Amino acid sequence: MPDTGTTAAAFAPANIALCKYWGKRNQELNLPMTSSLSVSLGDKGAATRITITDHDQDIMTLNGAAVPLFSEFGQRLMVFLDLFRLNLYRPPASLRFHVDTTTSVPIAAGLASSACGFAALVLALNKLFHWQLDARHLSILARMGSGSACRSIWPGFVEWEQGQDADGMDSYGKIIPEVWPELCMGLLMVNEKEKNISSRVAMQRTVETSTLYSAWPDKVEQDLADIKQAIHEKDFSLLGKTAESNALAMHGTMLAAWPPVNYCLPETMAAMQKIWALRIEGLSLYFTQDAGPNLKLLFLEQDRATVQSHFNLDIVRPFC
Amino acid sequence: MPDTGTTAAAFAPANIALCKYWGKRNQELNLPMTSSLSVSLGDKGAATRITITDHDQDIMTLNGAAVPLFSEFGQRLMVFLDLFRLNLYRPPASLRFHVDTTTSVPIAAGLASSACGFAALVLALNKLFHWQLDARHLSILARMGSGSACRSIWPGFVEWEQGQDADGMDSYGKIIPEVWPELCMGLLMVNEKEKNISSRVAMQRTVETSTLYSAWPDKVEQDLADIKQAIHEKDFSLLGKTAESNALAMHGTMLAAWPPVNYCLPETMAAMQKIWALRIEGLSLYFTQDAGPNLKLLFLEQDRATVQSHFNLDIVRPFC
Repeated sequence: MPDTGTTAAAFAPANIALCKYWGKRNQELNLPMTSSLSVSLGDKGAATRITITDHDQDIMTLNGAAVPLFSEFGQRLMVFLDLFRLNLYRPPASLRFHVDTTTSVPIAAGLASSACGFAALVLALNKLFHWQLDARHLSILARMGSGSACRSIWPGFVEWEQGQDADGMDSYGKIIPEVWPELCMGLLMVNEKEKNISSRVAMQRTVETSTLYSAWPDKVEQDLADIKQAIHEKDFSLLGKTAESNALAMHGTMLAAWPPVNYCLPETMAAMQKIWALRIEGLSLYFTQDAGPNLKLLFLEQDRATVQSHFNLDIVRPFC
Repeated sequence: MPDTGTTAAAFAPANIALCKYWGKRNQELNLPMTSSLSVSLGDKGAATRITITDHDQDIMTLNGAAVPLFSEFGQRLMVFLDLFRLNLYRPPASLRFHVDTTTSVPIAAGLASSACGFAALVLALNKLFHWQLDARHLSILARMGSGSACRSIWPGFVEWEQGQDADGMDSYGKIIPEVWPELCMGLLMVNEKEKNISSRVAMQRTVETSTLYSAWPDKVEQDLADIKQAIHEKDFSLLGKTAESNALAMHGTMLAAWPPVNYCLPETMAAMQKIWALRIEGLSLYFTQDAGPNLKLLFLEQDRATVQSHFNLDIVRPFC
């Protein structure tokens, strides 16, 4: 068992899906109903330091503040850490951790904070215990913490292949070896408050109650093919249009759930209308939206100044 | 041929679908992909007077203003009138009409103005020419002008059965012989402007481009059964929940169309959020939304005062 004070740190980028992960076929293993595809947010993400402590309980801090162990997030982290310490060091395992995470994306606002958080934790654990796991196994472990975390092991474009195996060993993120330096993503924060329904609850409710969900796997299949073609051919309008339509369709499946699931605030709607109006005027500007009210705008470097003249954005160039 | 000056007038109520009509299997005959079910708006609707004129062109007035013959609406009306005069009186038919319509619902704001307008016109034509058609044939003729007009021939609950025949002779509105005196509908106008995309264009685009549309017929089948049960058992929460979910699912299918179709203004979203919040507090309040930004609130007479304390509504009791 490692000594008290042993420490390791790692960073993982946030990732924004261009073709969304929405719905699980296995809750416990976070196995998805469909494949998905994301692009990472460069140096925006989570930096996690994990340290062996002699406290009698785990200590968790998030952006400098203590996370109560019995909060939903605290429990989720403990259950995840138990996967390792209970298997590595049989109970009663006295191994306790101090997990200190700093994120450069807002928490629980649909900016993939849990994805990069769990990915960074897995990377830090790998260092701490000298596991020397390959990317595939790191991705699988990250997926156990939060589904989309399996895509945050890599930078750039990543496809999470849904896999078929019951144990999920074929369900992990794979890098798509393409770069697109002109690609920009603008984070449009319409509201920094935590969402009122977590994506894990929302997706489960959608799978269980939304009749429209039955059409979602076909939508993903078409969109994945189009997005991969767009990336390969650097066809930005195909990329933008497919990503936007995929996000809107995901939100469409939620509207048909009961009780209805809606992440659009009035400000979200106003921003969408502004984007649509600018596009009609000829600007090549698209958006995607996750399980939160904020939008992520997609555009090319050549349109950056124009886009910035209309929106107050935090701009990321995933490949620069 | 009737004499110049011959005149007849009729009224037809607007109708609001609780299970929506969205998508055609035949454009020309307005044959729907699915059945639908509506409730009428009592004395809100269209009053139409049709008069034989000796002008060399048709004259159309809507709420006192002339309708240009070459506007989209003017053309639609003329094409509809041609169905009769060209079949009854072979061309060159000199028969010209003055069609004067007054509506008590706003035009093209998702308040079923074209439905009651075409229904009133058919009822007036039936009187003018002494056709003495039965309700089934009147409903079929109204459907040729605007699909949902076939439901405005009757008051109260009306089911439009989709039918199977290629000529549409089995696709018309039938009254559901139930009354529900406590049922209230509140018209919440968030915006009286004309919608920027007509429902006929929007539904066609949805059918052609939205992957989620494939799940719509199943949604309608379930919802129709639930709404009919709710009406029969006077189960208001089942009625409200099913109608709201049906409307949201219809809008969900539109979001997945390309270009996306969205009728929600920021004010629409704010109103929905207020309704959801009141429902969580225990108020039995639901909504439906058509191809426009306005909502129609559903509640019972016992909650009328409470609902009115929260919203500025135009309230209709369909069965009083």
